[in-house]
Amino acid sequence: MSDRFYKQVLTVEFEYPVVFTRNVFDPGNTSLAGVMLPTSSGRCARAVVFVDSGVASCHPGLSDRIQAYFAAHATEVELAEAPREVPGGEAIKGELGFVRDVIGFFVDLELCRHSYVVALGGGAVLDAVGFAASLFHRGLRLVRLPTTVLAQNDVGVGVKNAMNLSGGKNTVGTFSPPWAVINDFAFLPTLTDEHWINGAAEAFKVAIIRDAAFFEFLLRHAGQFKARAQEPMEQLIIRCAELHLEHIRTSGDPFEFGRARPLDFGHWSAHRLEAMSGYRISHGQAVATGIALDSCYALRQGWLSEPEYRNICRGLKECGFALWRPELAEAGADGRLKILGGLESFRQHLGGQLHLTFPRGIGRRMEVSEVDEALIAECAESLKGC
Amino acid sequence: MSDRFYKQVLTVEFEYPVVFTRNVFDPGNTSLAGVMLPTSSGRCARAVVFVDSGVASCHPGLSDRIQAYFAAHATEVELAEAPREVPGGEAIKGELGFVRDVIGFFVDLELCRHSYVVALGGGAVLDAVGFAASLFHRGLRLVRLPTTVLAQNDVGVGVKNAMNLSGGKNTVGTFSPPWAVINDFAFLPTLTDEHWINGAAEAFKVAIIRDAAFFEFLLRHAGQFKARAQEPMEQLIIRCAELHLEHIRTSGDPFEFGRARPLDFGHWSAHRLEAMSGYRISHGQAVATGIALDSCYALRQGWLSEPEYRNICRGLKECGFALWRPELAEAGADGRLKILGGLESFRQHLGGQLHLTFPRGIGRRMEVSEVDEALIAECAESLKGC
Repeated sequence: MSDRFYKQVLTVEFEYPVVFTRNVFDPGNTSLAGVMLPTSSGRCARAVVFVDSGVASCHPGLSDRIQAYFAAHATEVELAEAPREVPGGEAIKGELGFVRDVIGFFVDLELCRHSYVVALGGGAVLDAVGFAASLFHRGLRLVRLPTTVLAQNDVGVGVKNAMNLSGGKNTVGTFSPPWAVINDFAFLPTLTDEHWINGAAEAFKVAIIRDAAFFEFLLRHAGQFKARAQEPMEQLIIRCAELHLEHIRTSGDPFEFGRARPLDFGHWSAHRLEAMSGYRISHGQAVATGIALDSCYALRQGWLSEPEYRNICRGLKECGFALWRPELAEAGADGRLKILGGLESFRQHLGGQLHLTFPRGIGRRMEVSEVDEALIAECAESLKGC
Repeated sequence: MSDRFYKQVLTVEFEYPVVFTRNVFDPGNTSLAGVMLPTSSGRCARAVVFVDSGVASCHPGLSDRIQAYFAAHATEVELAEAPREVPGGEAIKGELGFVRDVIGFFVDLELCRHSYVVALGGGAVLDAVGFAASLFHRGLRLVRLPTTVLAQNDVGVGVKNAMNLSGGKNTVGTFSPPWAVINDFAFLPTLTDEHWINGAAEAFKVAIIRDAAFFEFLLRHAGQFKARAQEPMEQLIIRCAELHLEHIRTSGDPFEFGRARPLDFGHWSAHRLEAMSGYRISHGQAVATGIALDSCYALRQGWLSEPEYRNICRGLKECGFALWRPELAEAGADGRLKILGGLESFRQHLGGQLHLTFPRGIGRRMEVSEVDEALIAECAESLKGC
């Protein structure tokens, strides 16, 4: 017999709602109960809820309100156990033991693969809980309730999760679209100033490379964002989430089999800064620095004008972001800036060749596959005075 | 602001070749090197190879031949490290530590997400290595080289992997279509008799519910399968793999979001038998028993005729399968047969409601959502004499 060859082609469709609401656990709010379909046998849905400890501590009685909500919707969905608090913050993403424990919890509760896992919290909790949920029975139904600006306008609406195993940022994870995303603006007022403003960096990122009008909006309201004005921040979140959803939907490659990930502007150095600082520098802060660094590079290459570059820096600074960080100046034994190691990690993650997105004027983008490391070093140095 | 609602819809296309060949590591065989595309930067591909220790022990010098193969194809693909032996058999699927170690190995080698992970071995090795590969950078390119009949005609050509964490069969895993599947028939002659015949059970499974002509073929050659005739076994593998590929491609739900999984005929009790025996009973043997049990049930319900049922039992027995096992008679403290617990696990895995596939005549199938447990117990008892 000679060789035989078959080509297997599969198409998989994913669909999920993204809702913006207020007070999701008011008994009269049907956003959450509405996405929890009964099982095919007509029995009511079963759900578990994970609550970010940082959110729980700012919202006394939250667990009781969640239980009261499920009690009010008991004909539609059964809460399999009282809400479970999990530690917020990036550290949870480094714990494989956390994933094992969560899976053991799913086993004990005998969750079926049409059960609902509700993850309420910041991006790290969404990532870690979402990762565990994506593995059990090869994927439970994940309902994300992002509570930070960053989680609501970026991480929470996307199709990925990740853990930081073996020391690197997002080394493992799965592509696993959520069952539903419910963004509740009522969680925003209790955010720390840092968590409040962090997500604005992602809004600058996507505005600079995709939407000049949105960039103008961000510039105009930068001071208000810093002053914690709720209304413009809600607008920022909605537009930023829309742009992320649109990118994922229209990129032609939502699971990133190919090379292009054009919403990663400013991220090669941001991921490196986070890891270099032991995750003391938060993602949003690191992204703000990364945007400034790559915008400076774009200026020096002639892809941005001087006023455009100055506007970017001004907007970020008016939000309260530091553009320079001491880590930008750290060099290894070979004299090379440590930050440049982020280029290798990025290349590996993308798949062999470097592809970086830079702005070409405001609201437009271009991709490059090489960077001038000496020029990056000059840009890093020049940020020091910003 | 009132609530806002967005519907996100994504379509993801997966494509992979399935090749049947011989002597995949002959330097002149291009099946393997042919699927390893250069990186987008034009640099040659990088690959790591995991070899099932059971296969390695039957094929002295295999590691050298693999290295020689890559050396002969060095312009196309670089072997990042010498092939790595991993323990074969179901035990590897219970070790989360194995996954952590494999990921650490990927980190050390700085694999990018377009690197190739070649998994050579039986279904358990394909599952465990495939699971780890599906997580690193959210998925490396997995090339499966299944070496057993069962892996070549079933597990290896599908879109799933799994691990047995927290005591259950396939409790965690991912849907992660492979990059390519290369079935090398030259590995079959060194299989133990048990591994040789095990995969025939899956062929009976799919033939009984989908392909009457294939069932006739299986009946006609059952004695030859047992006598280790290579040529009809290759035909069995090809047809069984074709039927699995067709089912996955045409089911309309390759990632099993819905309820139907009609290729699981005979599997509810098979998974339970495996677990009850501490995986001493292999998957193929358990499936043969499961087919006999559910075929008996179909007979008693009038879905199969007496001659059809007798043919099924005769074919399985002529292959050398035992239709009855002492585990079928084990009862719990409540007097209920332990095997019936498999119905609950199956229900959980499917998502809340039971959906079982039974034959309705040979080559056709039907789904039921309830079973008569007393009748199952009678069928289990009646198999004792078979």
